[in-house]
Amino acid sequence: MLKQSQMLIPTLREVPSDAEIASHKLLLRAGMARQLASGIYSYLPLALRTLQKIQAIVREEMNRAGGQELLMPAMQPAELWHQTGRWDVYGPELVRLKDRHDRSFALGPTHEEVITSLVRDEINSYKKLPINLYQIQTKFRDEVRPRFGLIRSREFIMKDAYSFDTTQEGLDKNFQAMYDAYTRIFTRVGLNFRAVEADAGAIGGKGTYEFMALCDIGEDTIAYSENGDYAANLEKAEVVYKPSAKPQGDTPAVEKVHTPDVKTIEQLTQALDVEASRIIKSLVYRVDEKLVMVLVRGDHEINEVKLKNLYDATHVGLASEQDILAAIGTPVGFVGPVGVDQEKLEIIADNFVQDVADGVAGANEKDYHLVHVQAGRDFTVSRYADLRNIMEGDECPRGGGLIKFARGVEVGHVFKLGTKYSTAIGATYLDENGRSQPMIMGCYGIGVSRTLAAAIEQNNDEHGIIWPVSIAPFHVHVIPVNAKVEAQRLISEEITEALEAAGVEVLYDDRPERAGVKFKDADLIGLPLRITVSDKASEEGLVEVRVRRTGETHEVKRTELVSFVKSLLARVDSTGAELF
Amino acid sequence: MLKQSQMLIPTLREVPSDAEIASHKLLLRAGMARQLASGIYSYLPLALRTLQKIQAIVREEMNRAGGQELLMPAMQPAELWHQTGRWDVYGPELVRLKDRHDRSFALGPTHEEVITSLVRDEINSYKKLPINLYQIQTKFRDEVRPRFGLIRSREFIMKDAYSFDTTQEGLDKNFQAMYDAYTRIFTRVGLNFRAVEADAGAIGGKGTYEFMALCDIGEDTIAYSENGDYAANLEKAEVVYKPSAKPQGDTPAVEKVHTPDVKTIEQLTQALDVEASRIIKSLVYRVDEKLVMVLVRGDHEINEVKLKNLYDATHVGLASEQDILAAIGTPVGFVGPVGVDQEKLEIIADNFVQDVADGVAGANEKDYHLVHVQAGRDFTVSRYADLRNIMEGDECPRGGGLIKFARGVEVGHVFKLGTKYSTAIGATYLDENGRSQPMIMGCYGIGVSRTLAAAIEQNNDEHGIIWPVSIAPFHVHVIPVNAKVEAQRLISEEITEALEAAGVEVLYDDRPERAGVKFKDADLIGLPLRITVSDKASEEGLVEVRVRRTGETHEVKRTELVSFVKSLLARVDSTGAELF
Repeated sequence: MLKQSQMLIPTLREVPSDAEIASHKLLLRAGMARQLASGIYSYLPLALRTLQKIQAIVREEMNRAGGQELLMPAMQPAELWHQTGRWDVYGPELVRLKDRHDRSFALGPTHEEVITSLVRDEINSYKKLPINLYQIQTKFRDEVRPRFGLIRSREFIMKDAYSFDTTQEGLDKNFQAMYDAYTRIFTRVGLNFRAVEADAGAIGGKGTYEFMALCDIGEDTIAYSENGDYAANLEKAEVVYKPSAKPQGDTPAVEKVHTPDVKTIEQLTQALDVEASRIIKSLVYRVDEKLVMVLVRGDHEINEVKLKNLYDATHVGLASEQDILAAIGTPVGFVGPVGVDQEKLEIIADNFVQDVADGVAGANEKDYHLVHVQAGRDFTVSRYADLRNIMEGDECPRGGGLIKFARGVEVGHVFKLGTKYSTAIGATYLDENGRSQPMIMGCYGIGVSRTLAAAIEQNNDEHGIIWPVSIAPFHVHVIPVNAKVEAQRLISEEITEALEAAGVEVLYDDRPERAGVKFKDADLIGLPLRITVSDKASEEGLVEVRVRRTGETHEVKRTELVSFVKSLLARVDSTGAELF
Repeated sequence: MLKQSQMLIPTLREVPSDAEIASHKLLLRAGMARQLASGIYSYLPLALRTLQKIQAIVREEMNRAGGQELLMPAMQPAELWHQTGRWDVYGPELVRLKDRHDRSFALGPTHEEVITSLVRDEINSYKKLPINLYQIQTKFRDEVRPRFGLIRSREFIMKDAYSFDTTQEGLDKNFQAMYDAYTRIFTRVGLNFRAVEADAGAIGGKGTYEFMALCDIGEDTIAYSENGDYAANLEKAEVVYKPSAKPQGDTPAVEKVHTPDVKTIEQLTQALDVEASRIIKSLVYRVDEKLVMVLVRGDHEINEVKLKNLYDATHVGLASEQDILAAIGTPVGFVGPVGVDQEKLEIIADNFVQDVADGVAGANEKDYHLVHVQAGRDFTVSRYADLRNIMEGDECPRGGGLIKFARGVEVGHVFKLGTKYSTAIGATYLDENGRSQPMIMGCYGIGVSRTLAAAIEQNNDEHGIIWPVSIAPFHVHVIPVNAKVEAQRLISEEITEALEAAGVEVLYDDRPERAGVKFKDADLIGLPLRITVSDKASEEGLVEVRVRRTGETHEVKRTELVSFVKSLLARVDSTGAELF
C-alpha cells in the first residue's frame, strides 16, 4: 500500500515562474520532476512510474514488430564519430569529454556509429539479415536553448532502433513495421498524434515520417488536409500548381519607379499600393558554392529545403550582401530578375511566379523598383519548380480538400538511412553470390521522456493533469475526507487493499490534511479516478467515485466497488487497451 | 517465438585473448557482451534479458523494503560537488566534462550530492521523514585499470539508494531493512555471497557491510570464522589478543650486529637465522601531518585502516625516506624503536609485539640491527593496539573458531553516512520543537552489471555458463536435432508455443546447423534446461529434457512436457523462488 504521506510527491501551489508551458508547469506543480541544471531533470516517483509504463508499451510493441532489445554504452569513442564525419559536423550539441588517458569520447545523442560497428563485427552473411535492434536509454544533447521542461532537454530518455537489410524492399518492410508499431505505441499511450511526411534530404523517396503530438506549443508546423488523409511538415508539404487561366500579354511596358528606402514586401505594398501577390520577391542564395537567384511571389515564403533538394545540395543559405554586390552590383532590397545575365547568375522561380501578370520587382539599382514586370517577357527563368512553403487554404497534394495548419511536438521519427553509415563504418555482408555489399539501414526513434511531457500537454485543465489510463502513475486516488476519523481510515485502507488485489494501482492519501487540500492535490496529480471516503461509507456503505476527465461522480456500494472501478477504468480509457 | 537464427547471439568458439577470467570469457563467448572501448561494453540481447531480471528482483525487494524509485540525471553540476569537497577529492576516477557554456559537470559515479540537494529542497519537516529513495541507473567511473569485463568497468549499471532519518535509531532501522533486502536480493539472484563487516572509517559503529560474491578471482580478501557466523573484510577484521603466558625477562642484553644490505624481513631471517615472529618490524608512517613509528611482528602485516582509525586521521601513508632521515637520522631498512626519543617520534605497536621475547630490530644505523631486544625493557611504546591484518588460523573475534580466508567480489554495500552530506549540502529539517537538524543518511549500492558477471563467475563449467533459473535469459533451450526434418521442426515449434503459453521462456534454436554445433552453443549459453527433439518425438512421442547443471537427462512424453518442465525448473532453482 503506497501511502502519500510517505511518498516524495512535493506538490506546489504556485506556478513556477520559469515554466512557460502547461506540461512543464504541471510536471513541477504535481511533484513529478525537478530541474538539477538547465535542461537536466530528476524524475520523481510519480513521473518515473509513468515513464516505466511508456517504456513497457514501447518494449512490447517493438518486440512484437520483431525488434531485439540490447543496451549500448553512453560513452562512445571519438574515433567512431570521425569515421562517419559526425565528430566535426555535429557541432556543440554533441557532449564531448576526455578520459583520464586524454582519449576523446562523445556522450551518445544517437547510436548509429556504435550499432553499425557492432553489426559490422558480428554479422557477415545475408543469412543473418534482416535484423532490427533497439534500446531504451538516456541520451545527451547539449541544446543551445533547453526549454519547455522535458520537451527540449539536454539529458533525456529515448528509444532508438536500427534495422539492417540486404534489399530496399527489406528496408521498406522493416520501415513499415516500425511505422505500424509507432502508430500502435502512440495510440496506446493515448496521444493525439499524426504521422507526418518529413523531408528525407539526400536519401529521397518516401523515406521519413515524423510522429507529431498535436499541441499548440509545438515548435513544428504540420500541414494537413481537411479530410485528414494527408499530413506533412512545412518543409516537406508539396504545393500543387495548376497554370492559371488568367490572360497574359496586356501588361504595359516595364517602368522604373523611385522607391527610396523601400526594401521589404510590406513597405512595397504600401508605397506602390499593390497586393503582395503581384510582387516578385527576388532572393539570392548560396547553394553549396554556387549563387542562384530565387523568385517567389511576395505573399509566399521560400522553402529552403525544397531549394536544397532541387540542387541536391549540402548547404543552402542566403548570399551575403558582398556576394550579391559582386555578382550583380545590387544592394539588398532592390534585387530583381530583369536584366540579369544568367550566364553569371542562374534564375529559378517558384511555379506561381508564372502567374504574376503586371508584377513588381527590384530594379537592381538602389532605391528603384520596376513595375509592369512579367516573367517570360521581361526576364527568363531557367527552371520553375515547387519552391515555396505550403499555406493554409492551399490545395491538398493528395486531393484531400484544402490544407489546414496545426502545431506539433515531434515524439517519434522513422527514417530510411540507406547505406550512409554502413559504408562509412564498413558494415558489409556477403550476399548469395559471395559478393560484399553494404547493409541498408533504417533508424527509428521515440522520445520517451518527451512523450510523457506531450501527454500532459494534451491532457490537462486549469486544475491539473488528466492522465490517460494507460500511462497514469496510478489508476485510482483513494481519499478519506477526514483521515483522523478511524472508520474512514480503515475503510480507505480496506478499499485500497481490495483494489490492489484486483490489479488496480492505488495511491492512498493518508495525510492529515483538510479535504480541500487533498482534492486540490488529487486534481493536480490527475489520476483517472478519485474515490472519496466520507462518513457515508461507514454509515451507508457508499463511497464516491469521481472521473477526473469528465468530473462525473458515482455513489457506489463498497461491496460493488472493485468491479465498478474496473469497468469504469476500461470505459474511461480512450485507447481501448486491456488493462487487467 | 524467439528464433535463434534471427537473434543477435554471436557465440564464439575461441577464447578471446584479452579475457582473463571465466565470466569475462563467457560473456564474450556466449555472445552476451562486446567491448566498445576499454571498460565500456554493449549488452547484447541475452545479457540484457538477465540484467532486466536482476533489476526486477532488485526493484521488487527495494519496494518491499519501503524504497521509492526515482531517476536522477547522470550529468551533475560541479558546484554541487564543490559543496561536499568531492570535486577535488575524487580524483581522475570522476568523469568530468564541460558543456557548451563552459560549465563543468561530473558524470555521476554515485548520487549523494544530487539526492541530498533534492531532499533539502523538498523535505523540511520531521513529518515527512524517514524516506528511502533509490534508482537503477548507468554510472560512470574512470577506473585506472578497467579489467575482468563487467567486474571492473568504466560504465556500469548500479542500484543506489539513500535513506534520510531524524534519529540514529531510524537510520539503524532503514539500514537493517536494506541489509535484509540485500540478503533477499542476492539469495534470489542465486549468488553464493556473504555480508561482510567492512570498515566504516570516521563514521564508526557497526555502520557498514559489504555483500561479497565468493569467487577465487575476487580482489578482496574476506576473513570468516570456521563456524560461519563471522565475516569481515581484511581491513576490518579484529584480531583478538590475549597476553601470552610466555615468561619474559631472561633475554640477554641488547647486542648490535653487522647486517650489511639486509633490509627486508626475509633477508633478516636468513642473515640472523631467526623466525620472522621474533623480528620487530618498525615502519614510520605519516598520519595526517604527524610522523609515527609503528611496530608489528615480522610475520604480521600492518593494517593501515586500523592505524588511520586509531588516530581518527584523514590520510595515512608511509613516510618518505627524507622524512625519516630528518626525524631520526636512520636510512630505511634499519629503523628500530631502541633509543628513539618519543618526544620527537611517537612509537605505537601492535598488541602482539608485547609477546616478542629476545627480538630483532633495526639499530637506527646503516647496516646494523639489534638482537636480544625486548619491548618495555629496551624501549617504550606509547600505545598498544590492534594494528595488524588478521591471518588464517587466527582466533575468530566472535568466538566462532579459527579464521579462514576467502576471496570475494563486492556486489553490494550498505553504509551509514551520518550527516556528512546533509551538513555539507544543508539538508536540514525542523524537528518536533521547531529546531533545525541535519538529516541522518545512509547509502546502499548494488552493482547490477557486476552481479551479472559474478553470477556467471560462480556458475560455469568447462562447457559454458550454468544459469541460476531466476536470472537465466530464458528457461529452456528447444533444439531439434535436425532442423531440416519437417516433423522435428513442427514439434519444436509446437513445444515452444505450449511452454510459452505456460509462462516458460524459450529460446528456439531453428538454425540449420549440425546437432553438435547446436549442443555446444546450448552448453555455452547455459540455459537451465535443454529440450532435444529427435525422430523419437514424432515416432514415439518422446523428447529429451536435459538439466544443464547436473547433466541428468529425462525422456518425457510430449503430452506431459509442460508440467514436467515446470516442476523440474522449480527443483533446479536453488533459490526456491516462485517462478510461475
